[in-house]
Amino acid sequence: MPELRKDPITGRWVIIASDRSKRPSDFIREPVKPQPARFCPFCPGNEQKTPPEVLAFRGDGSANGGGWTLRVMPNKFPALRVEGDLSRQGDGLYDKMNGVGAHEVIVETPEHTLTLAELPEKRIEELFWAFRERILDLRKDQRLRYILLFKNHGEAAGATLEHSHSQLIALPVVPKRVQEEIDGARRYYDFKERCIYCDIVGQDVDDPVRVVLETDHFLVISPYAPRFPFETWVVPRRHESHFESTDPAALQNLGWVTRATLRKIDKVLERPAYNFVIHTAPIQPGALPHYHWHIEIIPKLTRVAGFEWGTGFYINPTPPEESARYLREAGLL
Amino acid sequence: MPELRKDPITGRWVIIASDRSKRPSDFIREPVKPQPARFCPFCPGNEQKTPPEVLAFRGDGSANGGGWTLRVMPNKFPALRVEGDLSRQGDGLYDKMNGVGAHEVIVETPEHTLTLAELPEKRIEELFWAFRERILDLRKDQRLRYILLFKNHGEAAGATLEHSHSQLIALPVVPKRVQEEIDGARRYYDFKERCIYCDIVGQDVDDPVRVVLETDHFLVISPYAPRFPFETWVVPRRHESHFESTDPAALQNLGWVTRATLRKIDKVLERPAYNFVIHTAPIQPGALPHYHWHIEIIPKLTRVAGFEWGTGFYINPTPPEESARYLREAGLL
Repeated sequence: MPELRKDPITGRWVIIASDRSKRPSDFIREPVKPQPARFCPFCPGNEQKTPPEVLAFRGDGSANGGGWTLRVMPNKFPALRVEGDLSRQGDGLYDKMNGVGAHEVIVETPEHTLTLAELPEKRIEELFWAFRERILDLRKDQRLRYILLFKNHGEAAGATLEHSHSQLIALPVVPKRVQEEIDGARRYYDFKERCIYCDIVGQDVDDPVRVVLETDHFLVISPYAPRFPFETWVVPRRHESHFESTDPAALQNLGWVTRATLRKIDKVLERPAYNFVIHTAPIQPGALPHYHWHIEIIPKLTRVAGFEWGTGFYINPTPPEESARYLREAGLL
Repeated sequence: MPELRKDPITGRWVIIASDRSKRPSDFIREPVKPQPARFCPFCPGNEQKTPPEVLAFRGDGSANGGGWTLRVMPNKFPALRVEGDLSRQGDGLYDKMNGVGAHEVIVETPEHTLTLAELPEKRIEELFWAFRERILDLRKDQRLRYILLFKNHGEAAGATLEHSHSQLIALPVVPKRVQEEIDGARRYYDFKERCIYCDIVGQDVDDPVRVVLETDHFLVISPYAPRFPFETWVVPRRHESHFESTDPAALQNLGWVTRATLRKIDKVLERPAYNFVIHTAPIQPGALPHYHWHIEIIPKLTRVAGFEWGTGFYINPTPPEESARYLREAGLL
């Protein structure tokens, strides 16, 4: 019998189609393997082909030169512009404002053919430090309300350049799905006086049927009502609403946790394309007792999403207890 | 300068990236053209290969035989089952229930190689009559709360069988995106004592910059803050919350309007894959003063959606004023 499950945070119901449950081998396989490129703007030696860097980690060498291990620069074709004011205005019953914000690219490695999962643990940790540093810088801008950090890995997940990179979009508004989570978590907090993510961590630690892996700092789980097969969340065990407030020991551990999680996904699903998003609280207010930052990883396994766009209704062919078991039992490659 | 626009119903902000505006020819073209098939369960002669029909329009001939122009039957691999009770239950902080509901297929034509846009106006009208008849039948079941009617056209939009068909999913819950629209429209109604869709129709008729076509009964528009390029809505001019309550003259006109709209889309975008969804009020309550049924058509133009899944944040490369102009100026093929 198929099951309807409710996401406890947003209240969204999804169908878990257990009758026709899909195993990893039932999905389309299109392994992502970056190939050497003739020209790549993110490769060492081409630093002058991108806008000037806003942050880089390098042993020696000068700004916009070589020697770096990670490099952050404005997107050459930004979806938003830093200049100008918001100019909020109405147009009859409609509302608009200028597309003020920032759009940056974080090049994760100088090596063109390595994926994030293949980088050493320490280098993945440094990526999170870079995210943190950019947030701390950008949140000084009072026009901005939210910073999205995400990664499209593989063409099928929307990556237009193969060289491993993440993106940052700073916005003068809060994205809808994040706002829904905050609102839902707030309602739970008003009712229970506890953070719902903390409660999820508590319940899933006690009954680890959806747990992929566990460290002192993080729990990696298949959520109870996932929209997509093999959707995976990385949730800090200690309550913290803002990613940038994570303590250094946890951030250090996040390098290992992310590497282990991505390697398990690569192993079970044969190097799938995926989207990786950090959900964190809006930048301007202080710490929130009801919201809890986390990472969502969505492997791109089904060719398309069909009517889900139009309805917000999802049919997931793989129960999360099964995806968690596959990932839990997989080694680290 | 890119622009941030707010959808007046749901409150979702989208970026309209007018700087790098995309014209129809900038999108990937994968024209959908059904090819003759060796075996197709929806073709005449194979009526015994599907579950028994629950509705058919035929001149003569007997049930589950030939002679039909439209045929409705349960999905052979249903996402939900009609049998059983809901058995709502908790699991710690989680909630679930049995996947009770209905999942039906509406075969729109006996001709394997014709698309919906290529059918005569009268036959498209009959499809809407079939939708109405199935809703009137299924809403007698008090366990059900919502009926989704949708069409995935082309493999890229999620169609698994090429033969032109729509689908019906009857649910014991209201899908999230529909609920958001109802909630948003309700807030507007509480404030203004007017239906927001009626106000949109009013404003867009006065200033037809986003109008694709207009009849006495319907307005076809590019919405103000579309998530996707060439997203198109068909909105009844007269207020009506429930699709199944549409008056016969309007339903008759809807055949022509749908045909004209799909043909314009086929012409401008070279027969794209698309998703087509009817948004209507939940089945059980009576008429709602604040909600207004409509159709949303989303051509599948961008290869993937990337991080939008994880954030609810959309970057649309085509301003709706431009997509409306392209569609308005296109003939009917």
